[in-house]
Amino acid sequence: MRDDVGPNKRRGTLIAIGGAEEKSRDPKILAEFVQICGGPDAKIAIIPTASRLSDTGTRYEKTFKDLGAAKAKSLPYEHRRDCKKEEWLKVLEACTGVFLTGGNQLRLSTTLGGTIVAKTLRRRHQQEGLHVAGTSAGAAILSEHMIAFGDEGSTPRADMVTLAPGLGLTSRLIIDQHFRQRDRLGRLLTALAYNPAAFGIGLDEDTAAFIGPDDVLEVHGSGALTIVDPKDVEYTSMDSSHRDDPVCVIGLRLHVLTERCTFDLSTREARLPVTTSNAS
Amino acid sequence: MRDDVGPNKRRGTLIAIGGAEEKSRDPKILAEFVQICGGPDAKIAIIPTASRLSDTGTRYEKTFKDLGAAKAKSLPYEHRRDCKKEEWLKVLEACTGVFLTGGNQLRLSTTLGGTIVAKTLRRRHQQEGLHVAGTSAGAAILSEHMIAFGDEGSTPRADMVTLAPGLGLTSRLIIDQHFRQRDRLGRLLTALAYNPAAFGIGLDEDTAAFIGPDDVLEVHGSGALTIVDPKDVEYTSMDSSHRDDPVCVIGLRLHVLTERCTFDLSTREARLPVTTSNAS
Repeated sequence: MRDDVGPNKRRGTLIAIGGAEEKSRDPKILAEFVQICGGPDAKIAIIPTASRLSDTGTRYEKTFKDLGAAKAKSLPYEHRRDCKKEEWLKVLEACTGVFLTGGNQLRLSTTLGGTIVAKTLRRRHQQEGLHVAGTSAGAAILSEHMIAFGDEGSTPRADMVTLAPGLGLTSRLIIDQHFRQRDRLGRLLTALAYNPAAFGIGLDEDTAAFIGPDDVLEVHGSGALTIVDPKDVEYTSMDSSHRDDPVCVIGLRLHVLTERCTFDLSTREARLPVTTSNAS
Repeated sequence: MRDDVGPNKRRGTLIAIGGAEEKSRDPKILAEFVQICGGPDAKIAIIPTASRLSDTGTRYEKTFKDLGAAKAKSLPYEHRRDCKKEEWLKVLEACTGVFLTGGNQLRLSTTLGGTIVAKTLRRRHQQEGLHVAGTSAGAAILSEHMIAFGDEGSTPRADMVTLAPGLGLTSRLIIDQHFRQRDRLGRLLTALAYNPAAFGIGLDEDTAAFIGPDDVLEVHGSGALTIVDPKDVEYTSMDSSHRDDPVCVIGLRLHVLTERCTFDLSTREARLPVTTSNAS
């Protein structure tokens, strides 16, 4: 794996989950996350801020402990002033992985945005190998440009999506979730049409992108991951489209990837799972 | 325009409309169809077979006459035996354009499939320049491979779509309609994943593809047309996918085109509208 974040610094793995991941019967995605965080040595901090339910954090504590993590601790940040709590910052400094639950991504961004908590996550992820996972709203907020909310539908329209600054752990992706279940291709394309720079990532439920420090993304889970690559976009009409107008976009590349397929964010190549069998 | 269907033979224009086209206030698509069929010399036959409503044919008669057509005659084929009616066949032989209404495409295929009516449409379209338009179900049936029905959602799944033979006026396209409104990217991708040969065409409501005999498609209407070009598809997992599995597809090309954009089915190039202005 490449180490391109400076001498003696290493980036952690970024895990974006499309929501509704399997938690009890066969929780493959969460088990893989615990494994990456150190397995029996994993120390996981849970940030349930996006959720309205009071037991979201404690339920994930139990799930991660059941999966063999050494520690799993919920940090229920509710107000911006909570971000100064020394005890919780110590947990964030000592953990090997952070998990952001689902809910409303604007709860996350308005509560954590610009605070020492956001800065700590970014620094430790980019320089100290902290692994950061988020599901649903927690996935949306991982990137620099976050889809705050939007409309459903397959066709991009000018006013279909509202972007907001996210945690900025990556600026190469715009992440959308519940993708198949809530028909979100249009809003993802709209987000890309503003500025065809980032990859668009559409995550189905119970499906995750594991993005290593080598910039290779691997798909895990029961659904599909849709990658929209705007590199060869020749034109978008976003600058001249009026509210509710359909937006013209010429030259997108699209991949629909399933379990164990990979996509290299540097070379822009999609690959099938490596098989270990010798059978032809 | 190229004439590639033989000496002294010419293909007509094929018009696929995504359903719910504007009929009264500003019926641009239907007006353009009348114009192509000859304007004041247009003789249009309407096939309302897909519809369950008894007045669909007569309402289109009035619409086309209001738009200046010389003749507009509904041919309400209801049973397969109706296809032998001499009087209606004479109308089909004399008309300059045929319009297939919306409804259920399986009503069209089960009633007309394999009959003299289907053969006449195909012969006259391919050899005598008969223009054929269809809206919604009427659009779906124009191609050789027709989407009979399917599920909603952005991600392709193995059992998501059922194909059936259509009228076969083109084998280069698989056409889906009500595209934005009913979230049909997944089923269109599924149809292409079976055999990545044809272009996938997703038509929003009140939006049409006008495909000339030169194989250039032009977009008309208030919505967008999504073109999925499978030429560079490197892989699809359809052969090994089980029922309800997501399907992996690598290497699709996607364009979202709006009013007056064109797409050349031969060169596979999308183009912006030609502006007549000299302004830079």
